[in-house]
Amino acid sequence: MSISFQVEATAGKARRGRLVTPHGEIQTPVFMPVGTLASVKGVPQDILEDVGAQIILGNTYHLYLRPGVETVRKMGGLHGFMSWRRAILTDSGGFQVFSLSELRKLTEDGVTFRSHLDGSSHFFSPESAMEAQIGLGADIIMAFDECTEYPAEPERVRKSMELTLRWAERSKKYFEEHKHAVPWNFSPQVSALSHQETQIPRFARNDKQREDNDKQGEDEDKQREDNDKQRADEDRHVSRECASLRFAGRTKASVPTWSEQTQALFGIIQGGMDRGLRKESAERTIEIGFPGYAIGGLSVGEPRELTREIVESTLEHLPADKPRYLMGVGTPEEIVEYARLGVDMMDCVLPTRAARHGLLFTSEGKVSIKQARYAQDAGPLDPNCGCRVCQRYSRAYLRHLYASNEVLAQVLNTIHNLSFYLDTMQRVRHSISLGEESRFLSGVRSQPRS
Amino acid sequence: MSISFQVEATAGKARRGRLVTPHGEIQTPVFMPVGTLASVKGVPQDILEDVGAQIILGNTYHLYLRPGVETVRKMGGLHGFMSWRRAILTDSGGFQVFSLSELRKLTEDGVTFRSHLDGSSHFFSPESAMEAQIGLGADIIMAFDECTEYPAEPERVRKSMELTLRWAERSKKYFEEHKHAVPWNFSPQVSALSHQETQIPRFARNDKQREDNDKQGEDEDKQREDNDKQRADEDRHVSRECASLRFAGRTKASVPTWSEQTQALFGIIQGGMDRGLRKESAERTIEIGFPGYAIGGLSVGEPRELTREIVESTLEHLPADKPRYLMGVGTPEEIVEYARLGVDMMDCVLPTRAARHGLLFTSEGKVSIKQARYAQDAGPLDPNCGCRVCQRYSRAYLRHLYASNEVLAQVLNTIHNLSFYLDTMQRVRHSISLGEESRFLSGVRSQPRS
Repeated sequence: MSISFQVEATAGKARRGRLVTPHGEIQTPVFMPVGTLASVKGVPQDILEDVGAQIILGNTYHLYLRPGVETVRKMGGLHGFMSWRRAILTDSGGFQVFSLSELRKLTEDGVTFRSHLDGSSHFFSPESAMEAQIGLGADIIMAFDECTEYPAEPERVRKSMELTLRWAERSKKYFEEHKHAVPWNFSPQVSALSHQETQIPRFARNDKQREDNDKQGEDEDKQREDNDKQRADEDRHVSRECASLRFAGRTKASVPTWSEQTQALFGIIQGGMDRGLRKESAERTIEIGFPGYAIGGLSVGEPRELTREIVESTLEHLPADKPRYLMGVGTPEEIVEYARLGVDMMDCVLPTRAARHGLLFTSEGKVSIKQARYAQDAGPLDPNCGCRVCQRYSRAYLRHLYASNEVLAQVLNTIHNLSFYLDTMQRVRHSISLGEESRFLSGVRSQPRS
Repeated sequence: MSISFQVEATAGKARRGRLVTPHGEIQTPVFMPVGTLASVKGVPQDILEDVGAQIILGNTYHLYLRPGVETVRKMGGLHGFMSWRRAILTDSGGFQVFSLSELRKLTEDGVTFRSHLDGSSHFFSPESAMEAQIGLGADIIMAFDECTEYPAEPERVRKSMELTLRWAERSKKYFEEHKHAVPWNFSPQVSALSHQETQIPRFARNDKQREDNDKQGEDEDKQREDNDKQRADEDRHVSRECASLRFAGRTKASVPTWSEQTQALFGIIQGGMDRGLRKESAERTIEIGFPGYAIGGLSVGEPRELTREIVESTLEHLPADKPRYLMGVGTPEEIVEYARLGVDMMDCVLPTRAARHGLLFTSEGKVSIKQARYAQDAGPLDPNCGCRVCQRYSRAYLRHLYASNEVLAQVLNTIHNLSFYLDTMQRVRHSISLGEESRFLSGVRSQPRS
């Protein structure tokens, strides 16, 4: 079992759904904050929970370079490593390899690239990208794709799409053969955790698998199995819930085990800005078969209207009973609009990155908090926002923190922008439940505040 | 009324006391986190409350330059500006003028200096330092002193001490004449605040003062008084507690009003490393008369053993019934040791600054979290610490955040170090209550972890 997805209400093309993952349920449409290096920059995990993040995104390329997949795997995957109990999605690393690194060589087999950090040489293939993502242990992982640049010649777009399709098959094949190696069971720190949690991750019991392993009886694995057996015996005295709350620093680092719970691998639709190729990419990706489909290769410099057209036409070819993930968008208006078109999942660095530059999204429009006009403004950043920043601090204080280069500026600005995005999506879900498509956009304005 | 202080238990020379300020009670001995620019770097105010900060320190020199005293005053002082409901202390600015700025000219009257930010020229005198600190509105403010450099010739130390004494008299005179201008009443944001608060600031009712003001009947103040009167009328419908919880962005910015509640001005003992001069400075400062006394001019480069000697000998000359504040110390061992000697209040940038450099204080010694040895260490930073960092995150994760230059490293490291300092002081208070002087130092080690 990996994920399950049910559409529970619709309004026009928009859908409200329930996506069940091994680390909790997600109400869709959902916005996923980006936590590139196993941290949503500046925000402690308990505050992320508090603002309502249901699932966050990690970047495989960055995590592969730092701290490295093996380190994360040994800590029970990203959930254990960063102590995040809810769902996680990782990208395949493809987009960053093409955008961040010095690309050395693209072949049928994969991509050789140099790290943007130290220039060291690395190789990503569909197989190694799957291996990395299995080690990182996100709930949802992505097929390794080539993100086509914009603009590109028609022949180039087709070749790139064909490569992505071959890589999708290889990604699926490797994943199916290795998916039970996910590092969740008795992980050091998913367990670690604590106090305020309401959603207990539903871990599979793995006693049975351990017994299966025992039967294989490979000599070199004997000691490891004995350890597993001993732990399993100890764990029988503890309920599943209790076990998942133990501080794991006190348990041994995990070794690969066979798991009933697995990750879900999503396919990615490419095809550039060509509606015909997008249709073909969708149909052939669906033919390979995945539990969810992403639309990739957008927000790469094309006009926003074109993005919207391609999204709308591509969505027509995706199955209604599977989650649809639009990668890398957008502004508050855009995420509402894409939800209206029937997208279920979105991610974007915009709310977090803009926050670091003092650009804040509010119900009254975009606020550039560095402006002198806010220096003595005692009002809250957004009078209609219930987040802990708007409830406690004034614009004057936020302006001062930003102008003085205080780290707290980044922390508070990010908390607000994420709250605004997540609350916006919450309102969209509510509107869908009520069948009120027309009310999606009320209260969402991201043009500058006048 | 400004502050009151009662010693409630002693153990040897150590005292456990209760310091009541206009913004809440403080259990002493107390460690005061430093919030230079109206922010304890990287830590949201609700988390500061949560880790047990009873009083924080702001730096007058920095706040005078950014955002400026007038901005802070208009927001109801530092409490309103930064939305901090508990007690605040500001220094006089003297130490930073002498250590950070390009000092242009010291005269009997005061100091002309250039800003370390933009080179602009400014003048601080005892009077202007008091004016600034009244505008900032901390509960406890400090006399303007000259911090003598180390080492210094005996004649220089005496002249400096004499200047500080004359400045102490001028500081007190100005403060007594202007102390009712503190910007607390119906301030925009002390009021602002919220939800989790347990200690409601005990504001004086200022209806009576407003009526007094009305009787003065100056024409140019008529409009302002009318505004005040109108607000007072409105406020009569609201209980004191409710008024103090209103969001203040919706009330007008305050204008100077006469307040029954006032700040407390502390005197500062100087005298360099000369025990005789320290005694004389103490006696003559006490003769001027203050509700609390600070020991200044230490931690300026002298050997730690000398600091301790001067502290111990100076404390002998300070009245037992007044709070004693040792400025700018120290390591965890040192704050415990100074509490043992009878110090009631301390502040230091060490826990916050060290955190930003990845140096973490634990019950097992100092941890340099950047070290590779922690890269796969699944244990908590300090197994004996109950803070939210140690309860949730592993050393491996903290090491990764620091090595990857993630902002969350600074946030979490600072939260832990402050928790460690504040918990240490909490244990000291507990030991004093039990009369167990000998147990102060148990669990405090700041040498590197072996």
